[in-house]
Amino acid sequence: MEFHDPGECPREACGVFGVFGVQDAAPLVYQGLFSLQHRGQEGAGIVTCDGRLLHTVKGMGLVSDVFAARPWSELSGHMGIGHVRYSTTGSARMQNVQPLVVECSDGPWAIAHNGNLTNARRLRRMYGAAGAIFQTGTDSEVLVHLLADPMYRSRPLRVARALNELQGAFSFLLMTRERLMAARDPLGFKPLSIGKLGSGYVFASETCALAQAGAEYLRDVQPGELVVVDKDGMTFSQFAASPAPRHAQCIFEHVYFSRPDSRVFGESVHSIRCQLGLRLAMECPACADIVIPVPDSGNASALGYSRGSGIPLDYGFIRNHYVGRTFIMPDANQRSDSADMKLAVVHDVVKGRRVVVVDDSIIRGTTARRRVAALKRAGAREVHLRIACPPVVHPCFFGIDFPTKAELVAGRRSIGEICRFLGADTLGYLSQDGLLSPFRFPGDYCAACFSGAYPVDVGTVQGKTELECGAAPEPVGAGGVP
Amino acid sequence: MEFHDPGECPREACGVFGVFGVQDAAPLVYQGLFSLQHRGQEGAGIVTCDGRLLHTVKGMGLVSDVFAARPWSELSGHMGIGHVRYSTTGSARMQNVQPLVVECSDGPWAIAHNGNLTNARRLRRMYGAAGAIFQTGTDSEVLVHLLADPMYRSRPLRVARALNELQGAFSFLLMTRERLMAARDPLGFKPLSIGKLGSGYVFASETCALAQAGAEYLRDVQPGELVVVDKDGMTFSQFAASPAPRHAQCIFEHVYFSRPDSRVFGESVHSIRCQLGLRLAMECPACADIVIPVPDSGNASALGYSRGSGIPLDYGFIRNHYVGRTFIMPDANQRSDSADMKLAVVHDVVKGRRVVVVDDSIIRGTTARRRVAALKRAGAREVHLRIACPPVVHPCFFGIDFPTKAELVAGRRSIGEICRFLGADTLGYLSQDGLLSPFRFPGDYCAACFSGAYPVDVGTVQGKTELECGAAPEPVGAGGVP
Amino acid sequence: MEFHDPGECPREACGVFGVFGVQDAAPLVYQGLFSLQHRGQEGAGIVTCDGRLLHTVKGMGLVSDVFAARPWSELSGHMGIGHVRYSTTGSARMQNVQPLVVECSDGPWAIAHNGNLTNARRLRRMYGAAGAIFQTGTDSEVLVHLLADPMYRSRPLRVARALNELQGAFSFLLMTRERLMAARDPLGFKPLSIGKLGSGYVFASETCALAQAGAEYLRDVQPGELVVVDKDGMTFSQFAASPAPRHAQCIFEHVYFSRPDSRVFGESVHSIRCQLGLRLAMECPACADIVIPVPDSGNASALGYSRGSGIPLDYGFIRNHYVGRTFIMPDANQRSDSADMKLAVVHDVVKGRRVVVVDDSIIRGTTARRRVAALKRAGAREVHLRIACPPVVHPCFFGIDFPTKAELVAGRRSIGEICRFLGADTLGYLSQDGLLSPFRFPGDYCAACFSGAYPVDVGTVQGKTELECGAAPEPVGAGGVP
Amino acid sequence: MEFHDPGECPREACGVFGVFGVQDAAPLVYQGLFSLQHRGQEGAGIVTCDGRLLHTVKGMGLVSDVFAARPWSELSGHMGIGHVRYSTTGSARMQNVQPLVVECSDGPWAIAHNGNLTNARRLRRMYGAAGAIFQTGTDSEVLVHLLADPMYRSRPLRVARALNELQGAFSFLLMTRERLMAARDPLGFKPLSIGKLGSGYVFASETCALAQAGAEYLRDVQPGELVVVDKDGMTFSQFAASPAPRHAQCIFEHVYFSRPDSRVFGESVHSIRCQLGLRLAMECPACADIVIPVPDSGNASALGYSRGSGIPLDYGFIRNHYVGRTFIMPDANQRSDSADMKLAVVHDVVKGRRVVVVDDSIIRGTTARRRVAALKRAGAREVHLRIACPPVVHPCFFGIDFPTKAELVAGRRSIGEICRFLGADTLGYLSQDGLLSPFRFPGDYCAACFSGAYPVDVGTVQGKTELECGAAPEPVGAGGVP
Repeated sequence: MEFHDPGECPREACGVFGVFGVQDAAPLVYQGLFSLQHRGQEGAGIVTCDGRLLHTVKGMGLVSDVFAARPWSELSGHMGIGHVRYSTTGSARMQNVQPLVVECSDGPWAIAHNGNLTNARRLRRMYGAAGAIFQTGTDSEVLVHLLADPMYRSRPLRVARALNELQGAFSFLLMTRERLMAARDPLGFKPLSIGKLGSGYVFASETCALAQAGAEYLRDVQPGELVVVDKDGMTFSQFAASPAPRHAQCIFEHVYFSRPDSRVFGESVHSIRCQLGLRLAMECPACADIVIPVPDSGNASALGYSRGSGIPLDYGFIRNHYVGRTFIMPDANQRSDSADMKLAVVHDVVKGRRVVVVDDSIIRGTTARRRVAALKRAGAREVHLRIACPPVVHPCFFGIDFPTKAELVAGRRSIGEICRFLGADTLGYLSQDGLLSPFRFPGDYCAACFSGAYPVDVGTVQGKTELECGAAPEPVGAGGVP
Repeated sequence: MEFHDPGECPREACGVFGVFGVQDAAPLVYQGLFSLQHRGQEGAGIVTCDGRLLHTVKGMGLVSDVFAARPWSELSGHMGIGHVRYSTTGSARMQNVQPLVVECSDGPWAIAHNGNLTNARRLRRMYGAAGAIFQTGTDSEVLVHLLADPMYRSRPLRVARALNELQGAFSFLLMTRERLMAARDPLGFKPLSIGKLGSGYVFASETCALAQAGAEYLRDVQPGELVVVDKDGMTFSQFAASPAPRHAQCIFEHVYFSRPDSRVFGESVHSIRCQLGLRLAMECPACADIVIPVPDSGNASALGYSRGSGIPLDYGFIRNHYVGRTFIMPDANQRSDSADMKLAVVHDVVKGRRVVVVDDSIIRGTTARRRVAALKRAGAREVHLRIACPPVVHPCFFGIDFPTKAELVAGRRSIGEICRFLGADTLGYLSQDGLLSPFRFPGDYCAACFSGAYPVDVGTVQGKTELECGAAPEPVGAGGVP
Repeated sequence: MEFHDPGECPREACGVFGVFGVQDAAPLVYQGLFSLQHRGQEGAGIVTCDGRLLHTVKGMGLVSDVFAARPWSELSGHMGIGHVRYSTTGSARMQNVQPLVVECSDGPWAIAHNGNLTNARRLRRMYGAAGAIFQTGTDSEVLVHLLADPMYRSRPLRVARALNELQGAFSFLLMTRERLMAARDPLGFKPLSIGKLGSGYVFASETCALAQAGAEYLRDVQPGELVVVDKDGMTFSQFAASPAPRHAQCIFEHVYFSRPDSRVFGESVHSIRCQLGLRLAMECPACADIVIPVPDSGNASALGYSRGSGIPLDYGFIRNHYVGRTFIMPDANQRSDSADMKLAVVHDVVKGRRVVVVDDSIIRGTTARRRVAALKRAGAREVHLRIACPPVVHPCFFGIDFPTKAELVAGRRSIGEICRFLGADTLGYLSQDGLLSPFRFPGDYCAACFSGAYPVDVGTVQGKTELECGAAPEPVGAGGVP
Repeated sequence: MEFHDPGECPREACGVFGVFGVQDAAPLVYQGLFSLQHRGQEGAGIVTCDGRLLHTVKGMGLVSDVFAARPWSELSGHMGIGHVRYSTTGSARMQNVQPLVVECSDGPWAIAHNGNLTNARRLRRMYGAAGAIFQTGTDSEVLVHLLADPMYRSRPLRVARALNELQGAFSFLLMTRERLMAARDPLGFKPLSIGKLGSGYVFASETCALAQAGAEYLRDVQPGELVVVDKDGMTFSQFAASPAPRHAQCIFEHVYFSRPDSRVFGESVHSIRCQLGLRLAMECPACADIVIPVPDSGNASALGYSRGSGIPLDYGFIRNHYVGRTFIMPDANQRSDSADMKLAVVHDVVKGRRVVVVDDSIIRGTTARRRVAALKRAGAREVHLRIACPPVVHPCFFGIDFPTKAELVAGRRSIGEICRFLGADTLGYLSQDGLLSPFRFPGDYCAACFSGAYPVDVGTVQGKTELECGAAPEPVGAGGVP
């Protein structure tokens, strides 16, 4: 999938990380965010607390850039939370970088949010009418107003009651001067895992960050659960007034977002992807000489495809590790672009061969089209494209900012038309059944972007207006009631 | 005075600038802030509005640094406001840099504030109890909550009513999508002037910024007045429920803060300072060969002293224009410091001479002491220090962050003791009568830092806790009620 | 191999790129250097010529950083050369960044050099005695003095005669106002290839850079050949007074340095590495469940090993693409380091399995040791380490800055001792015969770092004192004769 | 004079500073350069020596910027030299920043040069023909080639003999691993003073830098003198083969370049300037109400004028201290420019008055013209411009890069025409006799830029081709013989 390619980045999944009860929280949060960098490259922030003061460092860019020049001493404290934020196009929006830090009448709160609140607009309007002011354009800010609302003020039940007012997808980390809290929405859209580190506790969007921080994975925060850690230890409760009839875990976490070395929703991401490739080989066979992955997103599914098909794996693309955010395009008139700079074809591998190219997904198709063309230019005899998920055709209301239907390659095209558009000899997508086949509890996943079967009544979701990680549709200063 | 010397900067007066009805507001605001740079070097910000969106650029540091790398195209619009903020020691506080931009239910507001609200803490507590959340540590933020309060919501009377709730010193610029507003507290502590530029209007803390922007000075915003500019023109009103019995214009603006080429409170700053020097010559004569100023703060009063005394003026100190924020001290063990780097003694001028040194004021006295010692080292036969204001001995509750009484050189010393501390042969301060003598309406000034005669009952001011330009005594995250 | 791991970087191979006869040379040189970035990350430079002036931009850091803020208009011209330089530890040495630009009596010269001149010290001493002065600590500078020497001054034969004085390894690009020259030492240590781009010509250390620039690969510059391009076209000549009896192409280019998608010395790097892995499977079999590569250096050889052994390939390590130069270590006391941040173990892949880990080479062994330990921690039942080359035990005098014998893991240890040091269950190295087996002309390679059989009498090489890319053993200012 | 105004900077005088025999040389050199910053703002460098190695830090920009982020530990050693370099227009030329550091066969040399060598081009051609290569475009580099020339190699007589080959203006500081040397050309064009600091010695272009470093002024280096300091102390010698018949000290040092608190060529700069103003009052009286200086260049001469004329001094211009290198102009279409931003008119001072404006000199006249216009706009009734030197009409071959005759306001205009061009009511220049009148030894000065009477036969100076501080007329890469 071409999500990570410059110009094609969707708004991704964001990542959160928190730690309580260690000597120095900041370096651990840093390591955690570093391991979650793939979930968001636009901005990053860390807030720590020493029991008295909250300390904040935030900035635009990669984790390593934001914290490069700052001494850890600026971020003292035994607890802390951090956030990485997706890429957006358009102007920098420093004020939207999380964690959000505010001061209520009972002290400061820091909040890090992964997900999309579908009733944020309504709540925002309600509080605005009552005189509330807003500093960011993010949906996450409404939780703060709920928490500050005198109606809910009898901590910690207050937090549960406030969370209960929210609809949509959320994995939250909250920090006050005394405690760290973690919560996941009742349908469990977004992942959030708990780890143990010495006598302290760690929370992370993915288990790869627990491992990086040296923590032991305990379990996931359950859908609808609020976990509170303070000096007396950890306590658990269900905040949802009524249990959800089913879960709706985002299947795209397994398809694309999560790192292969993570366990997400209780499953190994790498293993799931291998199995998707294996199943793909059965559903969409090809008569070819070699199987090559689109690195790195297609690595595991290509391995599965090779195993399932018996066609040998080879490396037809080489990834240039130096293509980064600072890459400047040499010239608009040059024939190459940064996608071409990123992957180079190994001519000796593909020349004269019939090649199966395996990738995890296709969104717009423009990058896939360049890849196919590059293989043909390098002398590939046939190019058979195999995609380890079904076509993406429906919008997501819970945090993934897919392009519009007109921009989605599969939005208004048949498979045959897509194949011609991409210039491949054949094209095969995994079926919806195939996609769910590797999971032990397929009914607990949301695959609505493929199927259109949303886990909640989306008629009540007022347009795809409030996005992943809380980016409002307009900048601060543009909103306002009609 | 040694205010500007590194390590001795008080929190100064801040500066605000606004413009409405021009082609491109941003470059004009930039020029205006540049001319007000002496009022605050910690941070700067500009917010513009194109009638639809508010655009914000803020940063720590000097005006020229903050906007150095930003194209004006980021700040489009026909109106805009800007703010320069004083120096503080301690960690950078990006979130406190103004203008403050928030979104209320009826749209975005931008606010720039010069002054100190003496009832901010009470209002903050009240709104916090009602569920309000705060993003900054500044007192200025309470105005936003007043404006957003449904109680006051029927613009523009709403603004007048909200301003009427405030106590203390304030010159405000407010901007919405449709209009620019300027207001000055009923006692008129801080300056704020109105200018005309083509068919548009300009507001600035000092008239030097009007001149720089090419605008014509019309008049000052009156104490207690609210001026509103929108596409239909300018309207004026008094927002104060009852008129103030007297005014309380800050005399320190004339003593030190304002630029000599400004007219402040209707008087030429340069002329006032010359007259203070002249009066000082009469009150505190000296038997000496030359009069030298401490550049540049003592230039005008030294000129006046020379004229009044008949003792010839000369330049005994040379100012190094390259001492700036980036100056790094060579070594703690070296005998010199940045104050020594900043002013150099002209040996040939002072050697063997009896020297009268004139400065505008003394705060801590440590720099003055170094200056006297440097003159003696250079061979001055006698050093007679003359100060163009009385000793500063009382705290300011309205925006100037003087050191504590223990740190003020005159806090607990007699004139004789100060003279010995400074190492001068004689020392003379201007009297309080002398200080007020050049003004046409001396009763309209606050000189409480010299006299202790505060213009309002300071028993009601709860400690010197909320400071100039709204810096709360603690960072966000540290506050909260007990 | 752990070359690229922070703290273990050898001084690598450097990369050169040149172009003649295009509209705008600079963007093409930039693209070329970008594709050669893996050959050197310390610094980069581009010099272009518009026929009248030479234009230079050089800097420390990655190609994308050095040229990020510079407009191409600073580098105008239809021809240009560029250079990427290896990492060194210690203080930045801006003056050593190439291309070197000097002015001789007949005009300016720009020089980019890959290799190590073994008689540079002698020539430097000779010219120094005659009054020459030196600006850099690089061996490359002696070529300039030869070129400027009146003895050799009758261009272009002059260049051939000057090159003929040099001993050791060199691939040079030279540029004057009229022409671009490329030369390769008579033994052909370092690669240098020629491409055609429209009506112009391109030279690059590796063919991957030709492909990136859109050029067609023509052939390699031959050992001992001087190629000159000017407005009249390309001319070829042999500069070596006598032909070399054999060639001595650096086998480490195939083992590690070159990018898999390059053809180097006429062979596909990827194919050679696959074959090394295949041979390794035959020479050093293992009884195991899966084969995993150390990404990305071991990818191709692991593929070969899997094919040769029949043991299935899997991905046990995930590479974090965000580990870069700006990575800051969280804390010295933390248990992890940047090598751990870079590769993460996929627990579900290795847990309970017998794992064959394949890498291209081992230098110090410290990183390999961490990898083995990480696999064991993740639950690998057995770890069988297989290395696709023989042990590195001898110094290189021709451009690779291996650590000292004491630091080389194989320097003073038997295979069994190395295996115990690394903590692996078994360890297998490829034999020297095996290493040469995939090549069509094995006699044309230098494998002295493995065998000690140097292609020239190294008794005449005066210590390993002048290094790859010309870094002198001491900084400028420290050298000089005894 | 408008030299320092953006866009009107000439290539100025450069400054050198050196120290031997102190604990840590670098911070002292830093302080010294800081005090000499007015002599050059383009770039700065420091080279120190610990007896074994030379350590170098150089960069473009102000002294405080270049060394802001560098720890002194990078510049260890008990001796060191530094250099500040003038502004040039055009692209940055990092390689021309001094001190120049090279390695000769007998070790490293560092060189800092103030002046212009009139035979550099001939020497450069001679050495180039013999095979020498050049790294910079500066004339200073020829001294290195002379020093390295085997003909002169028997230190320290070698240095004297090499210096004896040079023609033109030079004050040199040279450093090897063992010693520090200072030399001044036989005509003594440029200043160079010696100071004592504890048991060590200090050299500086101006005595203000000695004072800043805490050193005691001993005497000037004599014209034609070579001073050598090493661990055995200081030794003196005359290097000139024959003594100069007269000296030719640059009178522009007193007119403009030097800081008022320096003693230059044995005279107090401030006193000389006061006397020039006094004389100007006698030569060019005016019927006016006030005398105002153009700050800061006209401060001293305005004081003198006021004293001589009896017309009271006042401050009609206020200097904005924040106009610096990073100042960005708001907009090309705006009516103001940075010269207007730099000086603001004090309306209350000049309105309705007849004003005498005194400045030290006029070069192009464009800034003076803006100043006159600004005064008129502010309501000045009459503006009488008085210049404390004669019209500049002749080129300088010894280090000052005046504009061409066509650009000089006095180049092709009569006094009346200049006055009309500037828009002043009257204009008066000091006479040549008046200019020399304050000096005790007027015959020892070069005033050729005013008089055209050059101290040497300038027919032998081959065009004004090699400039102050050694900037060659063309960049490296452009030169070369036809």
